[in-house]
Amino acid sequence: MGKSRLEAFSDGVLAIILTIMVLELPEPHGDTLEALQALTPKLLNYLLSFLYIGIYWNNHHHLLHTVRKVTGGILWANLHLLFWLSLLPFTTAWMGEHHNSSIPTALYGAMMLASAIAYTILEWRIIRNEGKGSLLARAVGTNIKGYGSIALYVAGIAVAFAAPWLAQCFYALVALVWFIPDRRIERVFANEPDAES
Amino acid sequence: MGKSRLEAFSDGVLAIILTIMVLELPEPHGDTLEALQALTPKLLNYLLSFLYIGIYWNNHHHLLHTVRKVTGGILWANLHLLFWLSLLPFTTAWMGEHHNSSIPTALYGAMMLASAIAYTILEWRIIRNEGKGSLLARAVGTNIKGYGSIALYVAGIAVAFAAPWLAQCFYALVALVWFIPDRRIERVFANEPDAES
Amino acid sequence: MGKSRLEAFSDGVLAIILTIMVLELPEPHGDTLEALQALTPKLLNYLLSFLYIGIYWNNHHHLLHTVRKVTGGILWANLHLLFWLSLLPFTTAWMGEHHNSSIPTALYGAMMLASAIAYTILEWRIIRNEGKGSLLARAVGTNIKGYGSIALYVAGIAVAFAAPWLAQCFYALVALVWFIPDRRIERVFANEPDAES
Amino acid sequence: MGKSRLEAFSDGVLAIILTIMVLELPEPHGDTLEALQALTPKLLNYLLSFLYIGIYWNNHHHLLHTVRKVTGGILWANLHLLFWLSLLPFTTAWMGEHHNSSIPTALYGAMMLASAIAYTILEWRIIRNEGKGSLLARAVGTNIKGYGSIALYVAGIAVAFAAPWLAQCFYALVALVWFIPDRRIERVFANEPDAES
Repeated sequence: MGKSRLEAFSDGVLAIILTIMVLELPEPHGDTLEALQALTPKLLNYLLSFLYIGIYWNNHHHLLHTVRKVTGGILWANLHLLFWLSLLPFTTAWMGEHHNSSIPTALYGAMMLASAIAYTILEWRIIRNEGKGSLLARAVGTNIKGYGSIALYVAGIAVAFAAPWLAQCFYALVALVWFIPDRRIERVFANEPDAES
Repeated sequence: MGKSRLEAFSDGVLAIILTIMVLELPEPHGDTLEALQALTPKLLNYLLSFLYIGIYWNNHHHLLHTVRKVTGGILWANLHLLFWLSLLPFTTAWMGEHHNSSIPTALYGAMMLASAIAYTILEWRIIRNEGKGSLLARAVGTNIKGYGSIALYVAGIAVAFAAPWLAQCFYALVALVWFIPDRRIERVFANEPDAES
Repeated sequence: MGKSRLEAFSDGVLAIILTIMVLELPEPHGDTLEALQALTPKLLNYLLSFLYIGIYWNNHHHLLHTVRKVTGGILWANLHLLFWLSLLPFTTAWMGEHHNSSIPTALYGAMMLASAIAYTILEWRIIRNEGKGSLLARAVGTNIKGYGSIALYVAGIAVAFAAPWLAQCFYALVALVWFIPDRRIERVFANEPDAES
Repeated sequence: MGKSRLEAFSDGVLAIILTIMVLELPEPHGDTLEALQALTPKLLNYLLSFLYIGIYWNNHHHLLHTVRKVTGGILWANLHLLFWLSLLPFTTAWMGEHHNSSIPTALYGAMMLASAIAYTILEWRIIRNEGKGSLLARAVGTNIKGYGSIALYVAGIAVAFAAPWLAQCFYALVALVWFIPDRRIERVFANEPDAES
């Protein structure tokens, strides 16, 4: 199994998940600004889920970059991750429809939690194959961000039963945690534009 | 016709089938756990169909790996396979809606049977092109797993008219038969992580 | 503009058209064989449209194979072709819903006619770029099959106003004309399996 | 992050946006020509949005062509662009449903404006990385077409509140501005078909 096909298939699935979520956005009832505003929670959810897929796509690429040999285990761990992410259009639509409700909000968090765990399993499996001294094993390190995200998801699910809006803030926080540092690192590079020339 | 384009096109179609099935999952009626639980058969069906596409994608890759020259016959045998698999979102949705009914369950099995036969035809056609002594001909061997799956589908379709749930167990069994050995082989490799270094 | 990206983009669009058509198949009303049989015209239409996309994908590949340089004109001629083909899920669904009606049947033919003309324009444009003595110019030759298909579509559209079913037979005939010869050529190759070894 | 994966992912997302818009076209009510004619505004919108995606795909390719190194900033600027474009099926469907209404028409323009700004940000970011003297910096030049489009979108949004049809003409004008020159340049090349041989 060539790595490029695994990457291409995963990219394809992620690109489709990203794009078909828009099909779950219902048409506003009427042609007024109020009709559009009624969709605000759905649009914000769409933005959040879009961000998540963008982050997974980005991290997934870096993760696979370190793989030298694709085994059956890596392949299935990857499909396991894609399975949970593939449910995102479903959970996004449900939480968008009932953004003040506990169960849809908790389910959204549960799916993101399952995705995060699936991602961690994929990491473990690659490290097991590549060896403890491999590039990935060192790069992942203590993996504070990964385990911190899992903790935030768990907290979000618990909080969803008391205050769904707070749980949704937790989910947005996880996205920001992964999104912002990327830009920081980039800024360092941007200050040395001639570094690669 | 380059092999890489055939692979890329097949991967694209499989990735889309895998992902759009989620669009067939209806939104739960209401925001309660009961509303979500009412979707359990649909979600289980989704999981089963996801597994099937994952297995076909995996096996399809190994199959094409052995092809040296893509002929018109291979191309159409491949499209024939994709045709039956493309109906999976349709049959999955129908069986999900009527999981206790005979006809939807039998139809699901019939589509999987047609896919399995189409896969076997693709195998034959490749072997005819590559020669009896080719890598694929030897790898396929007596093809117990392939013919066994076909037998299980036929049995499942027959059983569907008496006990749909049992037929669905048969279909799940086929998926497990293809899924589990992969992991066994992988474990052997995993025990020798340095083998490829 | 690299040729590989044009091919990849076209393949992506064709793979998506092929696959999302299944989303236009409505779920049968009920769980009986009669409910499924009521979908027969829709399923036959799906098969026909699937065949058309398969044929276009196949021919499109051979066409682009001869291109040495992608110009803006080729790019837009290609997008023009993809535009008409992208309407296929729409026309397929409408003809499927009203398979005994003249207008939906004529529209289906009109879209296929527009696609065939767009394909011919793409051929002309490539030949203009590659030169009259190019491989493609000689391969296309008098292009009996291409112009014959266009004539059959025109005839089908006219016939649709008298007998929709006959028009649909015309459309199926075009698909067969393109499908069968491919297999004949293949059979010649299949008889010499060692030719490429 | 390899450039080819960024290109492939963007192409995938654009191909899917292009194709799933057809799913937003409702089936005509009935089998008559009148039923089809009632969809005219929707079909024209579909054509316009198809053109936009075709133009973005084309320009996006030329833009990325000049990139030598993909940084995190470029990646996120690219996802930012894809986010706004991904809303196109939603805004197209709404404007198609209410083509005489101000708010849907203004929203369509606002999304196109956001996409144009996102594209400009992506350009800036790439130029910042590649250096002021880079190929792209010189090619973009004073960027009259880019800023002119933004001005036309702003004008269109303002006009939408008085005359939606005029705003839609503005949007179509932007598409033509980007579409026609491409063909002019091409014609120059077409007059020298032997240039590349």
